[in-house]
Amino acid sequence: MELEFLGTGAGVPSKSRNVSSIALKMLDERNEVWLFDVGEATQHQILKTNIRPRKITKIFISHLHGDHIFGLPGLLSTRANQGGESTVEIYGPKGIEDFVETSLRVTGSKLNYSIEYIELNETTKIFEDKTYEVYAGKLNHRIECFGFRVVEKPRVGELLVDELKQYNIPNGPIFGQLKAGKTITLDDGTVIDGNDFIGPEKPATIVTFILDTKYTREIDVLAKDADVLVHESTFSSTEKRMAVNYFHSTSTQAAEVARSNNVKGLLLTHISSRFIGKSAKQLENEAKSIFPNTHLVRDFDIYTIPFN
Amino acid sequence: MELEFLGTGAGVPSKSRNVSSIALKMLDERNEVWLFDVGEATQHQILKTNIRPRKITKIFISHLHGDHIFGLPGLLSTRANQGGESTVEIYGPKGIEDFVETSLRVTGSKLNYSIEYIELNETTKIFEDKTYEVYAGKLNHRIECFGFRVVEKPRVGELLVDELKQYNIPNGPIFGQLKAGKTITLDDGTVIDGNDFIGPEKPATIVTFILDTKYTREIDVLAKDADVLVHESTFSSTEKRMAVNYFHSTSTQAAEVARSNNVKGLLLTHISSRFIGKSAKQLENEAKSIFPNTHLVRDFDIYTIPFN
Repeated sequence: MELEFLGTGAGVPSKSRNVSSIALKMLDERNEVWLFDVGEATQHQILKTNIRPRKITKIFISHLHGDHIFGLPGLLSTRANQGGESTVEIYGPKGIEDFVETSLRVTGSKLNYSIEYIELNETTKIFEDKTYEVYAGKLNHRIECFGFRVVEKPRVGELLVDELKQYNIPNGPIFGQLKAGKTITLDDGTVIDGNDFIGPEKPATIVTFILDTKYTREIDVLAKDADVLVHESTFSSTEKRMAVNYFHSTSTQAAEVARSNNVKGLLLTHISSRFIGKSAKQLENEAKSIFPNTHLVRDFDIYTIPFN
Repeated sequence: MELEFLGTGAGVPSKSRNVSSIALKMLDERNEVWLFDVGEATQHQILKTNIRPRKITKIFISHLHGDHIFGLPGLLSTRANQGGESTVEIYGPKGIEDFVETSLRVTGSKLNYSIEYIELNETTKIFEDKTYEVYAGKLNHRIECFGFRVVEKPRVGELLVDELKQYNIPNGPIFGQLKAGKTITLDDGTVIDGNDFIGPEKPATIVTFILDTKYTREIDVLAKDADVLVHESTFSSTEKRMAVNYFHSTSTQAAEVARSNNVKGLLLTHISSRFIGKSAKQLENEAKSIFPNTHLVRDFDIYTIPFN
């Protein structure tokens, strides 16, 4: 999995940061891209990347402020224009369907794919299939707001092909049987238990998104043991009171969440346009002093998960 | 007046052209900016200009396709963030209020100014004050669509101060009286009729916007004697049938409108992303062969009205 940041600014677009959107690229894992928030001009940002809109299959909306959703109608229309035919699932607070459907109806848009809306109203698991789970958790912002925890489930280990070489096993179905943990008998009578030749299980990979919110305990639940925590950092450590008043977080609050929840890497986003150059570096350093593996992200930054 | 093109592309944004929006800058005349269509990321384009969102007082929407309106909610929100307090009038087809109000309601936006919606449904004069008039005319697109004709009314001539020098008129109210066309008597008995010292009337200035449409007679009415005709040019002269099928115009149709209506200058916009480099030049040349004073515009082009 990879994260590509399409918009890392707070509130309004600036010359250096667009409003919020993050792509979780799962091309090897699922041949899909999931988006987290879709601020205005997200489709314009995508034009500058290698993301194909038709590969976007799920969109998670943290909350309904304009800087997180105004790019949605345009992106959905362009996805149709560019050959997108598979269903898109949109997860978001109540009202998201009203906004998108009004936009499509008023503009007379007929998409050549269907949209499935999953309106969120409580902390719960919102998606699961064989390989992935997604949890939504209620945060504490001026309006209803959710954080997300994406879990790639543990995977069985790889078949240790090198260690099987000594048995001169012919190419064919036997390798598949061994990988499935079966016991087979070779022509020379040798008995091999597949379970003895399967490498260690690949543990779960966890990516957590905490977008606009002030600190609340639910953040800890969502962030626990995450490989990557993406956390908003609208204010600096000296602006704690302002952060509380505006229902946002400081850089150090984000770092404390990372430290106390056994997170492996922290990415700070939702950066106010007040922080440029040195002052952005300072914001990052505040967090690093508490949680060293912290990066303050910029538009178009790409991080492989996990990162060091 | 000046025209600044904020988005000159058709349908979807491309790397070189954003979707539709045009600013009519009337800073000397009214200290206002009027917008014609507001495609997604118009506020991002404005960031790269000297236009201040709070000076935008009227917005004219030709029709409700997404590439002409999806930038409206974001622009209106940012205008509030940047100190805009005066009322904004939005002129557009039925549905525009539904779209904007749903967007503002769902996002919990409270603007610190009011919006007045003027929903268009027929060919008529839609605005008039002492110095300006605006007409809307029904065009012929897939959905209801309007063209606009902005008229700066004729202005009385300037007082010919140089010719009055011989009378040694003292500084003061007499100049104002003469400019108002009054007759005054100087201390030495000389009688001067103000009307004899007022230069020629400045004729009306007309700017016409014909955005998405195929040819229809209403275009001629709107374009008659225009100083500047802004006309869509989605297709080339060889694609006339396609233009008709998609309810659009060719470059040569735009030029014929300009030639047959005594227009002074033609600006081609709404350019498909298929036309880049040489092929865009060819599109322009097709029109020039019929109407020489034609320019195919690019994003951020500025034209003073009238232009040569």
